[in-house]
Amino acid sequence: MNDRELGCNSGGGQFMDRGRMNQNGVVQPLLTDLYQITMAYAYWKSDKTDDQAVFDLFFRNNPFHGEFTIFAGLEECLKFLDSFHYSQSDIEYLKQTLPEGIENEFFEYLGNLTARDVTLYAIDEGTVAFPRVPIIKIEGPLIIVQLLETTLLTLVNYASLMATNAARYRMVAGKHVKLLEFGLRRAQGPDGGLSASKYSYTGGFDGTSNVLAGKLFNIPVKGTHAHAYITSFSSVGELKTRLLKHKQTGIMEDLLEHAIRHRQMLSHVLDVSTEESSEGELAAMVSYAIAFPDGFMALVDTSGLLNFSAVALALNDLGYHALGIRIDSGDLAYLSCLAREAFEKVAERFKVPWFNKLTIVASNDINEDTILSLNEQGHKIDCFGIGTHLVTCQRQPALGCVYKLVEINGQPRIKLSQDVEKVTMPGNKSAYRLYSADGHALIDLLQKVTEPPPAVGQKVLCRHPFQESKRAYVIPSHVESLYKVYWKSGKICQQLPTLEQVREKVQISLKTLRNDHKRTLNPTPYKVAVSDNLYNFIHDLWLQNAPIGELS
Amino acid sequence: MNDRELGCNSGGGQFMDRGRMNQNGVVQPLLTDLYQITMAYAYWKSDKTDDQAVFDLFFRNNPFHGEFTIFAGLEECLKFLDSFHYSQSDIEYLKQTLPEGIENEFFEYLGNLTARDVTLYAIDEGTVAFPRVPIIKIEGPLIIVQLLETTLLTLVNYASLMATNAARYRMVAGKHVKLLEFGLRRAQGPDGGLSASKYSYTGGFDGTSNVLAGKLFNIPVKGTHAHAYITSFSSVGELKTRLLKHKQTGIMEDLLEHAIRHRQMLSHVLDVSTEESSEGELAAMVSYAIAFPDGFMALVDTSGLLNFSAVALALNDLGYHALGIRIDSGDLAYLSCLAREAFEKVAERFKVPWFNKLTIVASNDINEDTILSLNEQGHKIDCFGIGTHLVTCQRQPALGCVYKLVEINGQPRIKLSQDVEKVTMPGNKSAYRLYSADGHALIDLLQKVTEPPPAVGQKVLCRHPFQESKRAYVIPSHVESLYKVYWKSGKICQQLPTLEQVREKVQISLKTLRNDHKRTLNPTPYKVAVSDNLYNFIHDLWLQNAPIGELS
Repeated sequence: MNDRELGCNSGGGQFMDRGRMNQNGVVQPLLTDLYQITMAYAYWKSDKTDDQAVFDLFFRNNPFHGEFTIFAGLEECLKFLDSFHYSQSDIEYLKQTLPEGIENEFFEYLGNLTARDVTLYAIDEGTVAFPRVPIIKIEGPLIIVQLLETTLLTLVNYASLMATNAARYRMVAGKHVKLLEFGLRRAQGPDGGLSASKYSYTGGFDGTSNVLAGKLFNIPVKGTHAHAYITSFSSVGELKTRLLKHKQTGIMEDLLEHAIRHRQMLSHVLDVSTEESSEGELAAMVSYAIAFPDGFMALVDTSGLLNFSAVALALNDLGYHALGIRIDSGDLAYLSCLAREAFEKVAERFKVPWFNKLTIVASNDINEDTILSLNEQGHKIDCFGIGTHLVTCQRQPALGCVYKLVEINGQPRIKLSQDVEKVTMPGNKSAYRLYSADGHALIDLLQKVTEPPPAVGQKVLCRHPFQESKRAYVIPSHVESLYKVYWKSGKICQQLPTLEQVREKVQISLKTLRNDHKRTLNPTPYKVAVSDNLYNFIHDLWLQNAPIGELS
Repeated sequence: MNDRELGCNSGGGQFMDRGRMNQNGVVQPLLTDLYQITMAYAYWKSDKTDDQAVFDLFFRNNPFHGEFTIFAGLEECLKFLDSFHYSQSDIEYLKQTLPEGIENEFFEYLGNLTARDVTLYAIDEGTVAFPRVPIIKIEGPLIIVQLLETTLLTLVNYASLMATNAARYRMVAGKHVKLLEFGLRRAQGPDGGLSASKYSYTGGFDGTSNVLAGKLFNIPVKGTHAHAYITSFSSVGELKTRLLKHKQTGIMEDLLEHAIRHRQMLSHVLDVSTEESSEGELAAMVSYAIAFPDGFMALVDTSGLLNFSAVALALNDLGYHALGIRIDSGDLAYLSCLAREAFEKVAERFKVPWFNKLTIVASNDINEDTILSLNEQGHKIDCFGIGTHLVTCQRQPALGCVYKLVEINGQPRIKLSQDVEKVTMPGNKSAYRLYSADGHALIDLLQKVTEPPPAVGQKVLCRHPFQESKRAYVIPSHVESLYKVYWKSGKICQQLPTLEQVREKVQISLKTLRNDHKRTLNPTPYKVAVSDNLYNFIHDLWLQNAPIGELS
């Protein structure tokens, strides 16, 4: 156990503003709701220290009006368990903060608490998941398992929301368009930005603009320049250097001279007067090309195609190939077609066939609907840079995972509610995914852990958990047991996949879903069922526990 | 300068997943977009190292269909400047990540870069701010000022959005209702949760459930227990202890016995059969009361009032006063009135007048509209616990602050756009707030820094920045210069206010706004103007720079 002492000013009850995470970037156990700690004390006072509990972590609705969710955040949860320990400074803070009269032995107990006796089951990170099927199931001593609640929810909710959002963008954009996450500046706090980069990569993005995310998670980082770069130049007279070494000959040549010469010709080819294009912009592009002759990618306003093409041809004279342009305003469908057309003309006239293939990046306030609409109109965009809507999940900025007690000391617990949707599925359960012969997922089935798993080729009665008449027989061609033990006896007990592997898993898992579950408009809900045995168990408990009268 | 070496595995280009923030919880300079660094190289290559730039940080629209924004995040920005330094590990990562061919001297230059030569002006943190009036203005060498962009935006955008959201909740809830932030589990990442706690406190909340936020920022933390606590008990037989010491006599008494006795009586008073209320719930409440006899606050389902009142009266027998209840489901207006009525009956029948004043906390998916609707219906809630809608700012999850170059080497820069809203206000500007005799803010006025400030009692011509005919004379009774120098010569040069002081500032600043600017429905826009001099300056530049033709 690392010592994660934070430095406590024992005099005035003031703790330093530092240490949001421990040295390894793992969240601390104090990142929780106070009521978890007050409950822990009450459990401890009631001598419930050795009670054994099972909690389910699940969501009730898929986000974004969709019919699937990508589960993400598991690795962070496991790291959190691994480092779970209240530092001396945490304990000091709690002593000052909890109501007076808390017995000192409780703080000693807290100070020695670890997640060693907890067992965590989960579906694989990157797998598609569905409402009511727990994505994580945790067993262990009631107090510690309760104390984990808020932090686990925090680590899973946004990660899964973000991965799902990214996967949806990937689906509408198609396989062949590159997707980059550009949202750091609009993210909900610095870590919101980092998590967004990580989990949008998980969900199927190709990279991020966020450099720290690149460094921490080994994600490709991308970017060109901002409008400010263009406006920082007002004329070609400001260029302190115009010289660039020819890639093959090594001879220094005047790139601006080449560009101006090409601009004359291009002005006719593209039918744009050179007066319409700014001198400052030309200077900025020349200087940028000198800095990145092999990676020249320029932000192009409506009037910038002429200057860009001139500089790209100048680079070509010196043996370099430009990469392309980024469009950040205006009508993206129209402008991308216009740009592609211009590139094709240049390719033909100047005998530079690779000009046809210049990359066109678009990046102006793009969301799922924008991409769908662009697809409908027809566009020539190769890459989308997506910010605000992606990282803040504007369409639905929170996933509602909950964490419910389902069993204590071997006895099932049910949460009743007048709202059927909020009734929990009691007891320690197994979860299976049943597949058709063609490899598609048919249904997720919850059973009591004591039941034998469904068998391939055998008829299984699958029941709607709450509607008596909704039943179906399913004969699976393949049965997948969804839970693996990921944490037991104080150790992570599976080889954890790399971020790349989780990213692949997302695409593989999505492929097992029928298209009608994945479509944007009115997708078909995927079925989640319970075994006949579990159905009867739930409903017996329900009747036993439901009060007959009501206050209201 | 601290050494913030991260430990770089120079072999494989892999950097450890740690060090999101430095040891002091301050964000690192790599938390930025890659293009800032590629631009820095291009500026460096173009020998623009000593160019002096001025950037404005501002937003174009107030969030949440409102007409004001609370500026927050300044302290974090200043700490960021103070610690700005690329570590050796950062430089190694950049060497691996930037395109090949970057000159090594550039990395040396980066490695020595600090924010020493930067000057930062800002309005005070906690002040109301308006579209187009820069909240931060930064001067200094182009490269470093450019490199700060993304990080400053990240630190200001969510902080200001969150503080504004919280201030709006405070306005609709009124002064006398307590507001608690309960959103950690649904926040966008761990730091999203911490920032939410901090800035909702700034905006006018009274506390948070987030324990780490309490520790780091010295914010009051609050909480009671979850539903799981209730369901962890199924009968009074499970109570391992029922004894509680009488507060005055010190004699141990059986709390359960007291509670059961009161329950019989209460059943008549409240007209609820004891059979309707669960044994497990009674056991849970008794055990919770034993743990927190002076702080008994219980989660009460529709059927829980009887058990709560019984336990509260039992506590009363032993010399303790219960605090109150939390309602987390059902019709909050109706249930809070029902609960208050029950408390009043009990107060009268059992001669316990303080029972009238028991706190009623409500916490079920509350947003601004819910509170407005509850106010309309009439309710008896003393405190709202608000989660998802507050912390994710569901109604608008991002503020759109931008960072624009307005001057370079003393020459103004303007960003032109066909969309007038996106045209920037060029040049180095001062900002003033003009007040009426009754202390209300009348208008914000931008001027060129070279102009004399508006004088009290003297007519000032205020012009709409883009609409020629919109002009007004204003005679201010008080003139406030909005900018202070917060960072200069490598030092924070103002005494920074405490979080409490910023929180007070928000309320003081909001008071200077007329109510019609603050109302929820169709608020009146607050006016932002430019001096006649600045107006002419902008429009001359606009005409000089606007191209005559257009590509589209």
